Amino acid sequence: MTTDVRTIAWTGDALRLLDQTVLPARVEYLEVRDVGALVDAIRRLVVRGAPALGVAGAFGVAIAVRQAVREGWDDAERDAAIARVREARPTAVNLAAGVDRVLPRVPEGAAAVAAEAQAVLDEDVRANRAIGAHGADWLAARCPGRPLRLLTHCNAGALATAGWGTALGVVRELHARDRVELVYADETRPLLQGARLTAWELRESGIPCLVQADAAAPSTIMRGLVDAAVIGADRIAANGDTANKVGSLGVALACAAAGIPLLVAAPWSTIDRATRSGGDIPIEERAAEEILAFGGTRTVPEGVAAFNPAFDVTPARLVTALATETGVLEVSAGAVPGSRPQVGEPLTERPAHL
Amino acid sequence: MTTDVRTIAWTGDALRLLDQTVLPARVEYLEVRDVGALVDAIRRLVVRGAPALGVAGAFGVAIAVRQAVREGWDDAERDAAIARVREARPTAVNLAAGVDRVLPRVPEGAAAVAAEAQAVLDEDVRANRAIGAHGADWLAARCPGRPLRLLTHCNAGALATAGWGTALGVVRELHARDRVELVYADETRPLLQGARLTAWELRESGIPCLVQADAAAPSTIMRGLVDAAVIGADRIAANGDTANKVGSLGVALACAAAGIPLLVAAPWSTIDRATRSGGDIPIEERAAEEILAFGGTRTVPEGVAAFNPAFDVTPARLVTALATETGVLEVSAGAVPGSRPQVGEPLTERPAHL
Repeated sequence: MTTDVRTIAWTGDALRLLDQTVLPARVEYLEVRDVGALVDAIRRLVVRGAPALGVAGAFGVAIAVRQAVREGWDDAERDAAIARVREARPTAVNLAAGVDRVLPRVPEGAAAVAAEAQAVLDEDVRANRAIGAHGADWLAARCPGRPLRLLTHCNAGALATAGWGTALGVVRELHARDRVELVYADETRPLLQGARLTAWELRESGIPCLVQADAAAPSTIMRGLVDAAVIGADRIAANGDTANKVGSLGVALACAAAGIPLLVAAPWSTIDRATRSGGDIPIEERAAEEILAFGGTRTVPEGVAAFNPAFDVTPARLVTALATETGVLEVSAGAVPGSRPQVGEPLTERPAHL
Repeated sequence: MTTDVRTIAWTGDALRLLDQTVLPARVEYLEVRDVGALVDAIRRLVVRGAPALGVAGAFGVAIAVRQAVREGWDDAERDAAIARVREARPTAVNLAAGVDRVLPRVPEGAAAVAAEAQAVLDEDVRANRAIGAHGADWLAARCPGRPLRLLTHCNAGALATAGWGTALGVVRELHARDRVELVYADETRPLLQGARLTAWELRESGIPCLVQADAAAPSTIMRGLVDAAVIGADRIAANGDTANKVGSLGVALACAAAGIPLLVAAPWSTIDRATRSGGDIPIEERAAEEILAFGGTRTVPEGVAAFNPAFDVTPARLVTALATETGVLEVSAGAVPGSRPQVGEPLTERPAHL
């Protein structure tokens, strides 16, 4: 897969989403024209991944403004609809940030909002390319010599972004340099984003991949089968504590125990300086049914309930490095994302919108 | 569930196994009368769990001796059949130990072998009761006061043993003392022994339980939701390194990071003094199809392969304590199972067969 697969695009009057709930069995698109359908699509994970949610949030404001005109809403109704988009999922800061980014354009009308949202999308693709290059430079320097065996969790690929990917952007860049031997992709229960989405992206790109149970990740790492783990992030607190798909913490603990790097790849917009530490990040709990049944077949006995947190928080001390579009921060060595003292690669300019 | 559910029993001419592949949807039994069917049942996990495999191995020799008479095998054919039972699964030492235990009775015929195998079964139930009492004493002393929130991985219950259970034996004993508030049961991909079997046992016993994705276990522990984790073991090396269902290592790393106890509950027969350390334990790799599909539906894209280790090894330094039928060893504090310097609870006698 290249950037040819468009995870998210604006058609001029609708938001076109690649329906990630039916991959890899089918490649289908959903066109969204009203706020209710967008909120539903976000909650059902038709579109998911922190950077993609930022883009969806920005275009969601354009959808709300168009719907307000079409249905004769007053400003209060329109703003309530925008707030519904902003709060459709609680953990990733990007969704709210995407909404907030385009809000100043609302008085100018839907076209102006959509133009700003398109800028968010274009910047995301550029940011991913830069994240990939910085992350690849850092990993290549840290692990010189032979092609690398990498491990990733969930999907932080083209499907989680406007294109290219964050964690998988690093993998794609290393692959382009002939520096990838194999990627272990955690299947990522309960919704199998690793098995369904990451494996699909890697196969499409010709990158060798093995899918494994999430529970296997710590031993795969501690048995010495992996050179580094690369994951995305849904929110990074000012102190570097990192929320990502549940299971990332087990990967991080194993990397620390094995003495291999854990690289988090994410745009600057994932850093929420208003969130002081991981304890302040809201952790979304999703429906128990995601755990209790599979494909309509109940796997857990009737009468037994489930606990289904969608994210976990990896303490900053376990994050070896954070690759952003402007360079790499060595977090566990003391770099603090919220105060931006950069370490490692030379930096380009901070993006204009930050 | 009490010991009324008989996981494994000898009928006089067959081994009757509760078919764990169809639980919790159905309670069905399989009667096994020949070695091929037994090896198949062991490989398909109709019967599973280290202690239950020990009992199955012992009765497997009786089956082989009966089949040899019935089919006119010579001693070499009979011994080859016994070896097939012994090697049906590689990681749990109990299977081979159960076979070896009854071998001296082979010259006396099938009835003598079956009588010895029945002794293995009866000893296992008694051992589980003692393990449960010792483990509960230790945990209750370590975590005084209110009822405990516990976490377990896979199934080390009545279904994994001849009855009562090892890790779940500890939980049952604590529950009988009104010291259990809640058990988090990891679902245990790919075969969902936690979701299907542990949740079923706990529901039948009226012990409150929440099923969670395996990947959630480290954060459930590090968020402070759990007082202790209790797991079984498939093989314990002489130095205390412990092989158990894949995912146990992630639980162990999180317990160490959170500063809560990891209690391994297992009979002495699980300790293999011939295995010096965890690196010498063979790790069974099961069929990729267990990861690639679910209930007949392919979840991973065609053309992508899987890595499916069934077990992992937790280093002794991460095992807070090992509860056996003769007492508790505080392993991470320096007690070495292979040399049996016992720490903690007062000990009863070492079982006669050790």
